[in-house]
Amino acid sequence: MIVTATGNPTTEQPEVFEYRLRARDGAARCGTYLSAHGAVQTPCFMPVGTKATVKGVLPRELRELGAQVILANTFHLHLRPGEQIIEHLGGLHAFMRYDGPILTDSGGFQVFSLAELRRIDERGVTFRSPVDGSLVDLTPERSIEIQRALGADIVMAFDECPNAQMTGEQLAASTDRTLRWLERCLAVPLKPHQALFPIVQGGMNADLRRASAQRTVALAPQARGFAVGGLSVGEARETTYAMLEASVEQLPPDRPRYFMGLGTPRDLVEAVDRGIDLFDCVLPTRNARNGRVFHPAGDLNLRNAEHARNPRPIQEDCDCPACTGGFSRGYLHHLAKQNEMLGGILATLHNLRYLLRLCERMREAIAQGRWQELKAEVLPAAQR
Amino acid sequence: MIVTATGNPTTEQPEVFEYRLRARDGAARCGTYLSAHGAVQTPCFMPVGTKATVKGVLPRELRELGAQVILANTFHLHLRPGEQIIEHLGGLHAFMRYDGPILTDSGGFQVFSLAELRRIDERGVTFRSPVDGSLVDLTPERSIEIQRALGADIVMAFDECPNAQMTGEQLAASTDRTLRWLERCLAVPLKPHQALFPIVQGGMNADLRRASAQRTVALAPQARGFAVGGLSVGEARETTYAMLEASVEQLPPDRPRYFMGLGTPRDLVEAVDRGIDLFDCVLPTRNARNGRVFHPAGDLNLRNAEHARNPRPIQEDCDCPACTGGFSRGYLHHLAKQNEMLGGILATLHNLRYLLRLCERMREAIAQGRWQELKAEVLPAAQR
Repeated sequence: MIVTATGNPTTEQPEVFEYRLRARDGAARCGTYLSAHGAVQTPCFMPVGTKATVKGVLPRELRELGAQVILANTFHLHLRPGEQIIEHLGGLHAFMRYDGPILTDSGGFQVFSLAELRRIDERGVTFRSPVDGSLVDLTPERSIEIQRALGADIVMAFDECPNAQMTGEQLAASTDRTLRWLERCLAVPLKPHQALFPIVQGGMNADLRRASAQRTVALAPQARGFAVGGLSVGEARETTYAMLEASVEQLPPDRPRYFMGLGTPRDLVEAVDRGIDLFDCVLPTRNARNGRVFHPAGDLNLRNAEHARNPRPIQEDCDCPACTGGFSRGYLHHLAKQNEMLGGILATLHNLRYLLRLCERMREAIAQGRWQELKAEVLPAAQR
Repeated sequence: MIVTATGNPTTEQPEVFEYRLRARDGAARCGTYLSAHGAVQTPCFMPVGTKATVKGVLPRELRELGAQVILANTFHLHLRPGEQIIEHLGGLHAFMRYDGPILTDSGGFQVFSLAELRRIDERGVTFRSPVDGSLVDLTPERSIEIQRALGADIVMAFDECPNAQMTGEQLAASTDRTLRWLERCLAVPLKPHQALFPIVQGGMNADLRRASAQRTVALAPQARGFAVGGLSVGEARETTYAMLEASVEQLPPDRPRYFMGLGTPRDLVEAVDRGIDLFDCVLPTRNARNGRVFHPAGDLNLRNAEHARNPRPIQEDCDCPACTGGFSRGYLHHLAKQNEMLGGILATLHNLRYLLRLCERMREAIAQGRWQELKAEVLPAAQR
């Protein structure tokens, strides 16, 4: 189960590109993905650093939390400071001083979330920069070129994100376009340390999902990993998970699978239960900055007055810096109400550690054949 | 030179309250102030944590930076969350998880900076809460009671802060009132671990400064330290330093002296040169959040476009986490322009470390009889 062949027309690849499946328990898997910037133990939650920073967290703290891969955003970094500047400063790893694996998304999701100003056609997308109003062109080729300049280890294909209003015909056409765009992405050379992950689309249509996955694999049989996109758009969770299943069943087992944009504790467990290895989500960090923190018995809103006089930490048995540091809910309530930076920082450290520890526990449970046990323990209490 | 007698009508004081003068070089001194929460090596810059948090900095990071005493603000904490809640949660040290010495100011400065709504008379000050518009009463007794509840190691007297528009007569009357208020502050019992520092006022009148200092010492001969207030109001620096001199020359040499509210590198050196031991200032941290950082060759504004492509750290020979962490000016420029939390955090760590290291160097130079040398090195380059 070692993937060494190339999916891009670059020179010989270093042997670091491989995925080793270590254990399975049902569809749940644990494994190791090797990148040029180090090994990634899966299942793995990837903290989001949209603008080349996980908001409020130092790189050394990310390491201490147990983070492995982190994400950055092609759309935002292209607009500011621009990939030329990041490349001039040594690429994304040097720029943000994170020497572990980094993944950049393609900008597709962000562009397709923009207001009316965008124009979409076969060539790509044109939109007005939210920064200065100038016209910006984003095509499959351009997205990969930007990501090549940024230098992340994992580069995402530029896909069209269908919206919920599309008819069945429109959805099928959009899924076709994503596949044609994938071909164009694959034709753009990357740096030797980079790997491109295609994205399976297909909306909320299971047949389309299966077909999209099959055709994606056929187009990029040597891709070092595959992503499932378009499932963070507010559908009922049961539909989301069904679409995830339909997508995953067509993907090769010897390559990591990345479930894009969802990352509550429940999402993680449900997705791992369906064979997913990688996740990202901005909500754990965004919610933290608004005072919302994970707790095994249900999320807490630290802004609520009930916490004002509470001397206990967020969670007694948590090993994050906020909980082991002895910061009381009362103090965190005060910080949240006063919009103090430290409130967002401590809550972010807690939420990230919560998910990263859950991943550690999932890896262990799968390796030890205790997946059903862990699932039964985590799922009933886990909230959306 | 050990101060053990009490300045407050409490029970016997622990022996920790003492100031040991270790060395002098001209008027510059270095020494050790012992508090119930540990020793403070002077000269010492005290980072400001207005609302019980140095913005964006974890307590463990403060320790790593070499911080000793930190400040918190009676005015802000009285309004929110209220001293009862902080006392309920174990006092300020437990609340903010800082186990070193803490100083609280009295709220005088903040109240006297408020708009018209305040009413000042002999009894104290009445103002509308900026939080909820309710009427708040602050008297010398009330300020000390609040500070007792907060539980800081060093408690400041409640003083009247004269303004620049006062006539000579008004200024003299105000200075008299501060002395009468000091008597009332001294009559309020503190917790055994707390020490009250009186504040010398007197505006920009050197005679009044001298008289105020003499009368302050006469009223509180056993105070464990003395502060010089009213000098952070935008006067020309030469006037400020002259007033500082007039105030300090009347203070007992065996007690620490605290210069309130000014803390640029130049301020620190000029004040130490006049016999000052303690400082605080909000500007190093506030400026940091706006991208302004100290540099030996002159402050840098990281928001300036000139930094966008600069791969160098803020300062090559700085040992702060931002500079040793290898974060480039280009990256810090990006973070500052994007208002990313990490930009403010890294700049704050740099500015604090810059001043704390300057204090380390001042202590060393004084102990080794090299004060003039250090002064000559630091002063020409130090900016306001």
